[in-house]
Amino acid sequence: MSVVPRVVIEEHVRRFLMEDLALGDVTSSAMPDINVRAEIVVKQNGVAAGVEVARIVFELMDVEVVNAVPDGSGVGKGQKIMDVRGKARNILMAERTALNVLTRMSGIATITRNMLKKARKKNPAIRIAATRKTTPGFRLFEKMAVVIGGGDMHRYCLGDAVLIKNNHIAIAGIENAVKSARAASFTKKIEVEVRSVEEAVKAAKHVDIIMFDNMIPDEIKRAVEKLENLGLREKLILEASGGINPENVEEYACTGVDVLSSGYIIHSAKPLDMSLYLVT
Amino acid sequence: MSVVPRVVIEEHVRRFLMEDLALGDVTSSAMPDINVRAEIVVKQNGVAAGVEVARIVFELMDVEVVNAVPDGSGVGKGQKIMDVRGKARNILMAERTALNVLTRMSGIATITRNMLKKARKKNPAIRIAATRKTTPGFRLFEKMAVVIGGGDMHRYCLGDAVLIKNNHIAIAGIENAVKSARAASFTKKIEVEVRSVEEAVKAAKHVDIIMFDNMIPDEIKRAVEKLENLGLREKLILEASGGINPENVEEYACTGVDVLSSGYIIHSAKPLDMSLYLVT
Amino acid sequence: MSVVPRVVIEEHVRRFLMEDLALGDVTSSAMPDINVRAEIVVKQNGVAAGVEVARIVFELMDVEVVNAVPDGSGVGKGQKIMDVRGKARNILMAERTALNVLTRMSGIATITRNMLKKARKKNPAIRIAATRKTTPGFRLFEKMAVVIGGGDMHRYCLGDAVLIKNNHIAIAGIENAVKSARAASFTKKIEVEVRSVEEAVKAAKHVDIIMFDNMIPDEIKRAVEKLENLGLREKLILEASGGINPENVEEYACTGVDVLSSGYIIHSAKPLDMSLYLVT
Amino acid sequence: MSVVPRVVIEEHVRRFLMEDLALGDVTSSAMPDINVRAEIVVKQNGVAAGVEVARIVFELMDVEVVNAVPDGSGVGKGQKIMDVRGKARNILMAERTALNVLTRMSGIATITRNMLKKARKKNPAIRIAATRKTTPGFRLFEKMAVVIGGGDMHRYCLGDAVLIKNNHIAIAGIENAVKSARAASFTKKIEVEVRSVEEAVKAAKHVDIIMFDNMIPDEIKRAVEKLENLGLREKLILEASGGINPENVEEYACTGVDVLSSGYIIHSAKPLDMSLYLVT
Amino acid sequence: MSVVPRVVIEEHVRRFLMEDLALGDVTSSAMPDINVRAEIVVKQNGVAAGVEVARIVFELMDVEVVNAVPDGSGVGKGQKIMDVRGKARNILMAERTALNVLTRMSGIATITRNMLKKARKKNPAIRIAATRKTTPGFRLFEKMAVVIGGGDMHRYCLGDAVLIKNNHIAIAGIENAVKSARAASFTKKIEVEVRSVEEAVKAAKHVDIIMFDNMIPDEIKRAVEKLENLGLREKLILEASGGINPENVEEYACTGVDVLSSGYIIHSAKPLDMSLYLVT
Amino acid sequence: MSVVPRVVIEEHVRRFLMEDLALGDVTSSAMPDINVRAEIVVKQNGVAAGVEVARIVFELMDVEVVNAVPDGSGVGKGQKIMDVRGKARNILMAERTALNVLTRMSGIATITRNMLKKARKKNPAIRIAATRKTTPGFRLFEKMAVVIGGGDMHRYCLGDAVLIKNNHIAIAGIENAVKSARAASFTKKIEVEVRSVEEAVKAAKHVDIIMFDNMIPDEIKRAVEKLENLGLREKLILEASGGINPENVEEYACTGVDVLSSGYIIHSAKPLDMSLYLVT
Repeated sequence: MSVVPRVVIEEHVRRFLMEDLALGDVTSSAMPDINVRAEIVVKQNGVAAGVEVARIVFELMDVEVVNAVPDGSGVGKGQKIMDVRGKARNILMAERTALNVLTRMSGIATITRNMLKKARKKNPAIRIAATRKTTPGFRLFEKMAVVIGGGDMHRYCLGDAVLIKNNHIAIAGIENAVKSARAASFTKKIEVEVRSVEEAVKAAKHVDIIMFDNMIPDEIKRAVEKLENLGLREKLILEASGGINPENVEEYACTGVDVLSSGYIIHSAKPLDMSLYLVT
Repeated sequence: MSVVPRVVIEEHVRRFLMEDLALGDVTSSAMPDINVRAEIVVKQNGVAAGVEVARIVFELMDVEVVNAVPDGSGVGKGQKIMDVRGKARNILMAERTALNVLTRMSGIATITRNMLKKARKKNPAIRIAATRKTTPGFRLFEKMAVVIGGGDMHRYCLGDAVLIKNNHIAIAGIENAVKSARAASFTKKIEVEVRSVEEAVKAAKHVDIIMFDNMIPDEIKRAVEKLENLGLREKLILEASGGINPENVEEYACTGVDVLSSGYIIHSAKPLDMSLYLVT
Repeated sequence: MSVVPRVVIEEHVRRFLMEDLALGDVTSSAMPDINVRAEIVVKQNGVAAGVEVARIVFELMDVEVVNAVPDGSGVGKGQKIMDVRGKARNILMAERTALNVLTRMSGIATITRNMLKKARKKNPAIRIAATRKTTPGFRLFEKMAVVIGGGDMHRYCLGDAVLIKNNHIAIAGIENAVKSARAASFTKKIEVEVRSVEEAVKAAKHVDIIMFDNMIPDEIKRAVEKLENLGLREKLILEASGGINPENVEEYACTGVDVLSSGYIIHSAKPLDMSLYLVT
Repeated sequence: MSVVPRVVIEEHVRRFLMEDLALGDVTSSAMPDINVRAEIVVKQNGVAAGVEVARIVFELMDVEVVNAVPDGSGVGKGQKIMDVRGKARNILMAERTALNVLTRMSGIATITRNMLKKARKKNPAIRIAATRKTTPGFRLFEKMAVVIGGGDMHRYCLGDAVLIKNNHIAIAGIENAVKSARAASFTKKIEVEVRSVEEAVKAAKHVDIIMFDNMIPDEIKRAVEKLENLGLREKLILEASGGINPENVEEYACTGVDVLSSGYIIHSAKPLDMSLYLVT
Repeated sequence: MSVVPRVVIEEHVRRFLMEDLALGDVTSSAMPDINVRAEIVVKQNGVAAGVEVARIVFELMDVEVVNAVPDGSGVGKGQKIMDVRGKARNILMAERTALNVLTRMSGIATITRNMLKKARKKNPAIRIAATRKTTPGFRLFEKMAVVIGGGDMHRYCLGDAVLIKNNHIAIAGIENAVKSARAASFTKKIEVEVRSVEEAVKAAKHVDIIMFDNMIPDEIKRAVEKLENLGLREKLILEASGGINPENVEEYACTGVDVLSSGYIIHSAKPLDMSLYLVT
Repeated sequence: MSVVPRVVIEEHVRRFLMEDLALGDVTSSAMPDINVRAEIVVKQNGVAAGVEVARIVFELMDVEVVNAVPDGSGVGKGQKIMDVRGKARNILMAERTALNVLTRMSGIATITRNMLKKARKKNPAIRIAATRKTTPGFRLFEKMAVVIGGGDMHRYCLGDAVLIKNNHIAIAGIENAVKSARAASFTKKIEVEVRSVEEAVKAAKHVDIIMFDNMIPDEIKRAVEKLENLGLREKLILEASGGINPENVEEYACTGVDVLSSGYIIHSAKPLDMSLYLVT
């Protein structure tokens, strides 16, 4: 996974805080100027993610964070995620932004790890990867959450890897598309979407990764076997994509591919419920 | 609902496009410099939202949008949302950002309208409102989607309305909190969270809105009746909050409150599935 | 008043410093690399405001602030506002920005408090409020200064309260305007501008706040009496607006309204004169 | 004066619009989707300034501006400044930002021209200049307004000219300060603040501009004569500064200096009153 | 190469224009308000690059560009690059920024193509690639220029490909470094720097690309042969790096590697001299 | 030279770091979480510049800098520029940005000092100045490097000094251009480009600085003599410009001008080679 330095995260977190606080807080003026302690408690089992991001949220609000669980920790209902200490009004002003980060990132990490566990029962070497179906403005954190959950971030953006999709092929033809992609940069892997066994075979000699897009497990399995029979399997990374979710992940895990990519783990992840409680 | 002018939306959309395109697109170089047409088709029944935002996404990428359905339209599986026309590579570079906006906003509008319908069968005057449990960086669009779905945006941020929550009360006491909130600004409504019938009665004389937070429907009903008996009901807006979702929304709608606020309609909305197809 | 956290103020202050320092300072290169002390002294009686903002200006320039008077303090000619300590060149580079903030904000706080005193002699419960007639780019600080002076910030922007002005009424008609405003959000108060007793009576049943706009004190008085006679007075907040200034504020304070809003306190406030002196 | 290209002004105007519209407009939703015309009318005699900036405000809000008076026009009470045409809601959303720009800039241009007229009756070649006592975030427009009124913008920021003030001299000594300033850049003029005839004579050989700071007119006159007698007058630009305002400007204009600089023309300018009226 | 959409380039160009024009232009005020034509002429042979970026510079300044040569054109001394038409002052305000972009990008494209030609005489399949030794704030345009000159952009940033350098190896050991890099993302190629034949052989089984860093041509040749003899050559991309410049590029091209990467083509490229002439 | 405060440099450095790190670092995840020391060593003789900027790069990445040589130090091949201490991954993530700043700025300072030395052998009072032929996005640092090398930054941008170039003269005529420039601001020096002895004489009475543009040394010499004979020399600053480089700088230094301005010192400066080494 990408290591994202604090200076980059701070840029985003400042923007997040502005979203909630650009006009100030009309409720907190009532708060006496006292220091308090509070704790963030998780209300469901899951995987904690966004802890280090939430720490930055609080620290930019002059609130100290202590006893935080590490990102990626399995956490149980009722468990404390972190303690915070600082001025009452600062804690209350930071609360919602911190929780929005934590609950969303933890929700993504949780579903990622759950699907990964299911899949690995069938194929211990399989990977789960995200897609670019992310929330505009929050992609960095969604991708980080996938990685914290054990998944692969896949492409971050249109500039960091080549993925020739069916629309590209429709316009340029697969040969042209691959050839020109190959010219894009020797440092980029080339991946192509295929929709049938035949397309897979045709693409296999030219690319680094084949994505079986919206194909049913049985057809993927046949394609994998075909590639093996042709001696093309080994040098390729094979990926299945299209509607993979907790219900069908085991079935896809049995197809012989290396990677299952799933928009679901980001766009359909439920936030992991948490609350901030004052400690008296 | 707030009217958000194009100049404001453009600020956000430029940032969203940078997220995907700051390094350019290494795949689209293969695309011949031709003009194509494409259409965005919805794959589930729901409510279209984000159409005007997606239009701005495409227009900032020099792609023309025609035949777009109005925001708020009920749309059926297989229905076309809009046609786009422009250079092949521009359409493909805009595609994911536009779809991320459209699918998320439509998902929120859809669940909002669905829950509203259910609730209004029980209480035709009831309103559904969002909360501040939004995705950092995307709040404006999530709130707009709620409104497109027929809901109420509630507070946008900590600066536009007073909401005295239990943590405020714990620190400052309800009298102080209300008094100082009242001093915040005469243009702001004052809302207070209560957790029991007694608290509701105590708060009723001082505030504009009472939020029954995490109270079961029966208890809320009793509180409403009590306020009616005391002659305090009429001048108040009553709101129920805490875990309201499609399963229990009808029950809460029968409690006699005016508003049901629900984090669920944003944080647990499933994106409404859509794809962009080239038209040949 | 809104509590504005430091992280938000810093965003603005960085921009203010860039305005003066983006190209560096061509004069300070002469300054030896020594530490000095300086003090900011006020040269007129008034109310200190912007002290905490000026502190942030200095701290972002690595200058320490000590002995600062609290925001809102009454200060007398010749009184020291704060001491600063740091490198000579840093103090001189921060000086103008800090003074621009302090003198403007203090000027606004001073006129606000003065007008408020005059008005309260006539009506001890009356409030003075600002308008949106602010300096582009500096509104947050002008509104904060009004609040420090004892005033009410009124609407911060077009998104945080409904104010139906005569132009809205001219286009949509008052019934439509109020009805659709009511639909805007249940968390927003609704205010309407009226220009006569009749309009006031008509609006009274539908809104939270009535603004008597550009009406002479006598007419406002008649309108207030009429509303009282009709039993509509109590549930309303009544506001007078239009040309209210130190000369006529007492007259308006006798009309029976709750709030006097005045663009004057921001747009016509004279800066409170201050200088920074080196201490030897 | 500096020509400021549209692309630069747009950067600022977008920020100004965000200040009022980042959360959208909760009132304008009531406005039917119709096109209207409106006019901006001035309610006092003065000098129009900010007209081209206001045009950009409206154009960024998709409102057309026609028949605008040129910046710098003398305008009389009741005169129309410009017509605007567009959607009702767009005009109403742009109104306040446009008026805030126009009234402030026109107020500055008006006082600048008035003081200039007074001064030139005494000395037809004299110039009036601004200072850096500007509103943080709005300096560019305040300086532009001074120039539109016929004044000189003086330094824009700490980086575009050398001005050795008494604090610099106190720390570094005048010789060092001038010497090192001279080394700053050969493209920068060097100006020094003096407080007595003696200081003026001492500085005269080393600098381009002498500023008589907080000296009474008689003393300035003596200093000018002294410099003339010593044959140093001609190559210097002489500037008087410190509390110059409409009351005393004529007296300072008789001292023999070339430039009167005045913080007053910006920080104490009253906005020129204007309103936007719908045209039916 | 990455296709960079106009919306992304505009973000950068606006910033570039601010660098020169944030304070306006104090010279152009003299310019009468007339339209003129001008042409940009190249004064040396080379490769034109930055033409489309310069077009955006001019268009953001309301200047029309016509007859522009395509990016990547070979151009000869005295040849016209483009015509521009617009207001005299706008052309003069845009001139320097446009020329700074054009001359720098063309200089990079020229040296890239020249080195590529030399190298391809020895090895027709060889590629020349850039490094991250770029000018802070201008990387995107430097990388684009390399591609326009026929080169490969290599990594854009630390996030789009894995390159394990000697410092990584020193800290983590090569096995750990590769293993953990492999876990980074399956979409990223893994490249490792080696400094000897032995290191190359050791790395060969684990990575996609081997970079011979600061090795002399003969040693690189031996390493390539060794890899061939071991049957490892084919699946690898081999890259030579370290001090490659026009003098030694042919020698390195004979070593059998696939790619020569060179900081020289960016950091030591001389700008291609151009001027803007008014056309009378 | 301009003193640029840290708060301004940080704004730029954050942007530079984003260029390399916005997507994080996919290589450094392998790095164990240990602290290391490293040193930056220069590999050529030259002048160190950018040291304080690089310090800010490292500090924003939570890396401590110790033992840094002062900006402007002469440094010899193999000499250490600074030590850094911190987490291995932070040092490696900051490395390239810090080196890009250091090597470019030092390269500019080195060539500036070298040319200055050569020129001063011929004319000990002569100055070398930069031009606006800078890299978009990096101008501030290039100008700072010139000053560190002993040069003059000349105009920073179009707003801080008047320079009437041949294109201005062609459009407006020299009299108009000078007259209107003179009106620009009394704080700005006026410089005019001339191309012949006659033009120089004509301009001499009206301006502060004459730039001999693209004239051969002999012609410049004649022009200087002519101005001396006419008694105009003394009050003027004379500048030669156009193709001045290390080869011809001595010849130009003998012409009698005060300043040699050279785009070469920025646009053709070779970076001073440096590397970062881990210390074990």
